[in-house]
Formats: sequence, structure tokens, C-alpha cells
Amino acid sequence: MLTLTLNTTRRTEFLDITQEVERALPRPGMEDGLVFIYVPHTTAGVTINEGADPSVAEDILGALNRLIPLQGDYRHLEGNSAAHIKAGLLGSSVLVAVEKGRLVLGTWQAIFFCEFDGPRTRKVLLKTVGA
Amino acid sequence: MLTLTLNTTRRTEFLDITQEVERALPRPGMEDGLVFIYVPHTTAGVTINEGADPSVAEDILGALNRLIPLQGDYRHLEGNSAAHIKAGLLGSSVLVAVEKGRLVLGTWQAIFFCEFDGPRTRKVLLKTVGA
Amino acid sequence: MLTLTLNTTRRTEFLDITQEVERALPRPGMEDGLVFIYVPHTTAGVTINEGADPSVAEDILGALNRLIPLQGDYRHLEGNSAAHIKAGLLGSSVLVAVEKGRLVLGTWQAIFFCEFDGPRTRKVLLKTVGA
Repeated sequence: MLTLTLNTTRRTEFLDITQEVERALPRPGMEDGLVFIYVPHTTAGVTINEGADPSVAEDILGALNRLIPLQGDYRHLEGNSAAHIKAGLLGSSVLVAVEKGRLVLGTWQAIFFCEFDGPRTRKVLLKTVGA
Repeated sequence: MLTLTLNTTRRTEFLDITQEVERALPRPGMEDGLVFIYVPHTTAGVTINEGADPSVAEDILGALNRLIPLQGDYRHLEGNSAAHIKAGLLGSSVLVAVEKGRLVLGTWQAIFFCEFDGPRTRKVLLKTVGA
Repeated sequence: MLTLTLNTTRRTEFLDITQEVERALPRPGMEDGLVFIYVPHTTAGVTINEGADPSVAEDILGALNRLIPLQGDYRHLEGNSAAHIKAGLLGSSVLVAVEKGRLVLGTWQAIFFCEFDGPRTRKVLLKTVGA
């Protein structure tokens, strides 16, 4: 299993990791299959969305911050319940197809690491599965 | 990788694609494994939910439209930020098990393509992975 | 495909199924790959989040109950539209990597069955895929 290490710089932030994932694909190695992109944290997630205009990621973060306020009637005492909830809504993994060693993404798609309780040093695990 | 092409007819809409996915499974071919169902768009998603009563899909769309209003304090200038956000909440792929060449779904489950910025011509990519 | 059977005891509830999943991994069998954890129901889901402090699961449930009220302007006549919507937001499956026959989870991560329309007897399907 491959590991990417990321440093986030803000409390909530989307980092485009598409190129890091693509570069990490085994060459030569899996030519055709799926890559499993997994976040081993409980206050961060991963998602696929538009990468061309950074405003899209900001709008997604803005909507999540509006729906899940940082402060609220939460029981968890560490003060980061909102981050756990957002991570639950976006999910801990995505899968992307690989063909001829390249990610199969739509024209506008990018893979984003979703930081909800930064800044921190984070890991993303990658595993390839053959077809 | 197999491609389904769909034409959506409304701005936001769920299309039941269960039969199209089942028919697209390779025969003879993968008898046992998983099928990866992927949406290469950033304003559409895919989900699994009840297919028997169309009201369920309408209620899910209604809740999403209420939580993520079409017009809001968005930065993305194309006017479809709500669609990007909804796509992020539902996700770009689902996996379904296949046994003896048939989808393994619960009694009430159907696979829905989720249009959030239609009407458009859309694609769904399918890839099978052996167990 | 392996099946776990669960009994939920409340209307909405997270059950930590990490140990049940780990125990169900084939031994000897898949030493390295992914385990697909699938909920064949439309009013329940599965997610990965913090397992150490039960308050986190309560906060996630609390946020979902606030965003998706049990009673609302719903069309589905069975009275459980909120459960279908929550299931859609969390999703019907998760994937977890397996190495040397053990789940590869982050320090704080646990796998939760998410009951949104209990109490009921529920099933979780498990399928392993080799790498």
C-alpha cells in the first residue's frame, strides 16, 4: 500500500491530489484496474469534483460550514464534532478506474483531500486492484 | 470499460439505471466480483436507494434542494454550485456485488443516476473487478 | 459472500461492527486486498468514523436528525423518508484495505452500521477482493 503525506494549512480546505495519485500509480505495474484512495483519519475525507475553478471547492466547503456549524449542541468534548460530521458526509474513500496506467477521470474532475480540522499533517493510502 | 449514455430531461432528477447496469454485465465473463459504477461528471452523482416507490427519489431530491438552494452566496460563476455540492454529498461512484452474473441488491434497492444540472446527455462508466 | 446479521434497538443508531468485520475475514484466505462492506437496505447505511468516543456517533446522528427531520413535507407514504434520505447521504457501502489478514484502519477509525429506521433485524454483506 502506498502512502501520500500532505500538510494542510487551514482549518477547512480542499487539496487537489490528482497529480500525486497519478504519479504514485505503479509503473510498470497495474495497467488496468481501480485505484482505492483512502483517508485513515476521522476529521478529513476525500471527494471528486471540479478542479478547474477553485471556487467550486470553496462553495462546497461553504455549504458544509453552513449546514454543519463549527459550534453547536455537540457532545464530543474535543471541539471538532463538525469535522467528524463533514467527514461522514463526504466519505473516507473514493475509487477511480485506471487504464493504461492513467486515471480515468471526467474532463472537469479532480480528486480532493478534504481537510475539516486542520492544519495538520495527513496521510492518504493508495491501493491498486486489478480488473 | 463499458459506457452507458443517458439523456436526462429535468434540472434535477433521479434515473433508475439498474436494468441498464445489469444488462451491461459481460456475459459470459465476470461471474463473481464487483461492478464499479462511475459518473465522470461534477454536477451529477450516483446512489442506491428504494426503487419501488418513485416518491422516495423525489423526497431525496426535495431534501437536497432544501438544504442546498439553487441560488445562494456562491462564488462559482457558472450558476450551478448547488449541483456541484449535491454531487459531492452523494458521490461519484457506487459498487455492487455480482454473483452468477447478477447484481446482488437488496429487495428494495435500485441504482440511480442523480442529475443535478440537467437536462443533459450524460455518461456512466462501468468496470468489473473479479473477486 | 459473507453475511453479518445485526439487531438494532433504536430508531436511529450507529453500531460499531469493526470486530465483526475483522472476524469474518477468511482465514486462511485473502491476505491482501480490499473488503467490500455492503448494506442491502434502503433505510440504513454504513460509514467509517471515530470509534473511541461514542459521543462522535451521537453527534453525527444529531446533525443528521437536525438537517433531515423525521416529519416533513415528504411524499413517500411509509413515514420513513428521512431514513431513506440519511441512507443516501451516508451511502450503502464502504471499502477497507486488508493486509496480512487485518483491516487497515486509522488509529481512531471504526466501521459503523447506521440504522435510520429501526429497531430491525439487518444484514451486512461482505465480499473480499484480491489486490
